[in-house]
Amino acid sequence: MTEATTSTPPSPPSGDRPARARSWWGWGWADAHPGDAECAELGALVPGTLARPLPVPRIADLGIGAPAVAPPGALAHLVTADPAARAARAAGKAYRDVIRALRRRPGRVPDLVARPARDQDVADLLEWAAERNVAVVPYGGGSSVTGGVEYRGDAHRAVLSLDLTALDRVLEVDATGRAARIQAGMYGPALEDALRPHGLTLRHFPQSFEFSTLGGWLATRAGGHYATGRTRIDAFTQSLRVVTPAGTSESWRLPSSGAGPSPDRLFLGSEGALGIITEAWMRLQERPRHKASAAVSFTDFGAALEAVRALAQSDLGPANCRLLDAGEAALAGASRDGSAVLVLGFESATAPVEDRLALAVGLARSHGGRTETPTGGGGAPDTAVDAWRSAFLRMPYLRDGLARMGAVVETFETAATWDRVPALIEDVRTEVAAAALRTTGHPPMVNCRLTHVYPDGAAPYFTVVAAGRPGNEVAVWDELKSVAAEVLHRHRATITHHHAVGRDHRPSYDRQRPEPFALALRATKRALDPAGVLNPGVLVDTP
Amino acid sequence: MTEATTSTPPSPPSGDRPARARSWWGWGWADAHPGDAECAELGALVPGTLARPLPVPRIADLGIGAPAVAPPGALAHLVTADPAARAARAAGKAYRDVIRALRRRPGRVPDLVARPARDQDVADLLEWAAERNVAVVPYGGGSSVTGGVEYRGDAHRAVLSLDLTALDRVLEVDATGRAARIQAGMYGPALEDALRPHGLTLRHFPQSFEFSTLGGWLATRAGGHYATGRTRIDAFTQSLRVVTPAGTSESWRLPSSGAGPSPDRLFLGSEGALGIITEAWMRLQERPRHKASAAVSFTDFGAALEAVRALAQSDLGPANCRLLDAGEAALAGASRDGSAVLVLGFESATAPVEDRLALAVGLARSHGGRTETPTGGGGAPDTAVDAWRSAFLRMPYLRDGLARMGAVVETFETAATWDRVPALIEDVRTEVAAAALRTTGHPPMVNCRLTHVYPDGAAPYFTVVAAGRPGNEVAVWDELKSVAAEVLHRHRATITHHHAVGRDHRPSYDRQRPEPFALALRATKRALDPAGVLNPGVLVDTP
Repeated sequence: MTEATTSTPPSPPSGDRPARARSWWGWGWADAHPGDAECAELGALVPGTLARPLPVPRIADLGIGAPAVAPPGALAHLVTADPAARAARAAGKAYRDVIRALRRRPGRVPDLVARPARDQDVADLLEWAAERNVAVVPYGGGSSVTGGVEYRGDAHRAVLSLDLTALDRVLEVDATGRAARIQAGMYGPALEDALRPHGLTLRHFPQSFEFSTLGGWLATRAGGHYATGRTRIDAFTQSLRVVTPAGTSESWRLPSSGAGPSPDRLFLGSEGALGIITEAWMRLQERPRHKASAAVSFTDFGAALEAVRALAQSDLGPANCRLLDAGEAALAGASRDGSAVLVLGFESATAPVEDRLALAVGLARSHGGRTETPTGGGGAPDTAVDAWRSAFLRMPYLRDGLARMGAVVETFETAATWDRVPALIEDVRTEVAAAALRTTGHPPMVNCRLTHVYPDGAAPYFTVVAAGRPGNEVAVWDELKSVAAEVLHRHRATITHHHAVGRDHRPSYDRQRPEPFALALRATKRALDPAGVLNPGVLVDTP
Repeated sequence: MTEATTSTPPSPPSGDRPARARSWWGWGWADAHPGDAECAELGALVPGTLARPLPVPRIADLGIGAPAVAPPGALAHLVTADPAARAARAAGKAYRDVIRALRRRPGRVPDLVARPARDQDVADLLEWAAERNVAVVPYGGGSSVTGGVEYRGDAHRAVLSLDLTALDRVLEVDATGRAARIQAGMYGPALEDALRPHGLTLRHFPQSFEFSTLGGWLATRAGGHYATGRTRIDAFTQSLRVVTPAGTSESWRLPSSGAGPSPDRLFLGSEGALGIITEAWMRLQERPRHKASAAVSFTDFGAALEAVRALAQSDLGPANCRLLDAGEAALAGASRDGSAVLVLGFESATAPVEDRLALAVGLARSHGGRTETPTGGGGAPDTAVDAWRSAFLRMPYLRDGLARMGAVVETFETAATWDRVPALIEDVRTEVAAAALRTTGHPPMVNCRLTHVYPDGAAPYFTVVAAGRPGNEVAVWDELKSVAAEVLHRHRATITHHHAVGRDHRPSYDRQRPEPFALALRATKRALDPAGVLNPGVLVDTP
């Protein structure tokens, strides 16, 4: 098993092209990373960064040794101890993970990587792990930015990374009820490619879409790209198949049910701690035929928030309703005059959406918004909208370029009710900026956008770029993260809206979660995973 | 504590009117029940029923004795052993409950009825119950039609009915985020009365609205009146406060969160088996200002199903999309020519809805539907729509009139994916009709309507009216219910879409639920209710 096959999404259908290599230490494709010169340009924008980029790390320098455990005999064909495969699965893709790899102190390298080909393999591997007390860390696209795929427990325990990407097929399509049975290891693009001939789409596009899998979306309750309506993966889940050490759970395919607490809702968000999701029946949609978008500028961010609230509380249902603060808009090239920018988009497979866009723009204008281009849709989206889209997809690569310059970059997101949103955003800006200045001696950039809006609240997403302290970037990151978490907690805003809990958010999660629910979760963990092999350290601890 | 105060919803705000008395044995208001003459007319429509109505039963004839347990000292002021209060809480309002009361063999009469005034009372009562091994049956409006409020366990165990209707206030309104903190014991009308001055509505209208409470809706995952979009109570739940024997669970007010499995989703649908929901922050809506409705007739029910599927898979989002089969339409006075009737309604607080109605009617016509009145909305809804609405609200009273004539009446509902819906409906009709004929010697009426539609399926609702076997009506009902449950199971349709599991659906629920989820639920029950006092027999058994 070579590095190329273990760390690359399935090849595109035109199989002649050479497989493109994934970066083992950073985001996405290795060849999409900024080169040394671009890194230096990026670094020049952030005071207090390095003069030259850190070199791209090499696996050979990590000194990965022999695994502490031998692969199970009958399952040996599924398992590799190849250092490259193991290094690529030592951690996720948080800034913390990237900078540690750059500094050649990556997360705990797993002893073995297994790639099961069917459910029974998963069950067999779990049984073997329970017998040998091996920790099992489920692994999809590996795009976790919260320490979700990095074992941090007892150093003496052997660790198996359970890579599910060989479960990569659409098994059945129900065109009548618009649903498909899909294996959990499918990457976003392959999944959409397989549905396209049916005229259908899952229409779930998290920022990590290209490098994350259905199983990861389900296990982390991923938020999709769309601002309102059905956007979280939960809403698209018709039924789940989950292999647990206590047996396989398969819920019925139902459009809705009132029969007891929902079984699927136990596994959605369980982050690999209660079972391994191997497949799901997912609700699909017809591809939208009608689209229209517009950008609206606001001088006053507070007024923009009010406009967005009015939109969220209307029944217009924008597909995109993304509010960029002045800093975020400038960075994305969506604004040059210090305005906040609201990116509005409507989509429908049923009927034209220009009327809804016009009503939405009207509502935004009544709250002080300005449109510079004529509104209305069709083929020519607004420049600000385009600018935003390109910046959005390039962002994680730029982050890694900044990391190579020793800058500290963090993104985090939350959700809160509308009454708390303005003060929450203000406090995050002020307190994180103060912490960065205090810790690094340089003023940071703290930008905010609203990614998702609800009638009762919104999901603010923050991007922080700060100077590092050479060699101590992780400590700076930890400090900023902890200050941010305290602000969120004070405002009773959730520790995560779509980045999952993982290990990085665990302390905050423990404070957010009601104690009787923690009791229930611990009891459930003991019932389904009595040996405690599943993703130890995630969600609950069972001694 | 008199019967009037223990079995009556809060008086309307104009407190001068005398409190209207609830029926202790049948649905709703005692004075709304059909009289003997109307009962006889109803009975004449069903072959094989009695010549004269069964008399209205009297509590005095039940011979209710002294309770088997004394009320807890410090809590005595909250507790009554009054026979009338106890008789009214012996069972819910299923046909099975009504006919047993008419035959003077009601469900197990609880020993005591407690009406806690605050959360601490609930906690104290649970603690006392655990010490004395008293079964606690939570009770809201008592409208359960699935045996949800009737203790059926060990006859020697004392039973406390925990009536939550003294927790009957809106405690806080957040106008900015459109949410309110509401106590669980509020009846539907009182709740809407309290929200109206704020221009807001919960907009959750189950058929039982007048006689059910917020806590009951939450504990049973009630389905509201609206056909598409946010209609189930789950979607309106922002956070829950739940008193469990292991402590009080209070989730944060969040518009959305991706932090682990949702705590609220554990208690939604828990039917009193895991804790007592005492209050909730609920998401509210602006009252709709724009409405339009129309009725569309179909000669072919199969074509009507296709039309409804097309509507459900569009993004038009009808508030009402109720398909009545020929029998149901005739019964409701919505059709006189043997057509199936589709009742369509649109509502919005934002913008006029005539365009959406026109698109929907166009879609229905393209599937063979006929509109007899001009479509379009405003103030004059269609006659078929009006006819349907009145029949809908009167239905449970007519059922009790039929029960007094010894007829057997059952309603049950399910949900299934579209590919299964046509055969499912056909099989229920055929097999339930055959069972009724076999059991009673008379052909029954079996009608069907679709109450809720989803892109991936629909919720068929069945009404069965059959002859009884005098004195053995319960056996006939049990037989029809069991035949229906088998058909649903064979088609992998849920045992309940909005009637809850209770005790009547428990065997089917046990077959529907994945076994690992049952393990999780049992473990949770043991963790939160170690003494097993909470609604024993519901959802899970813990020895």
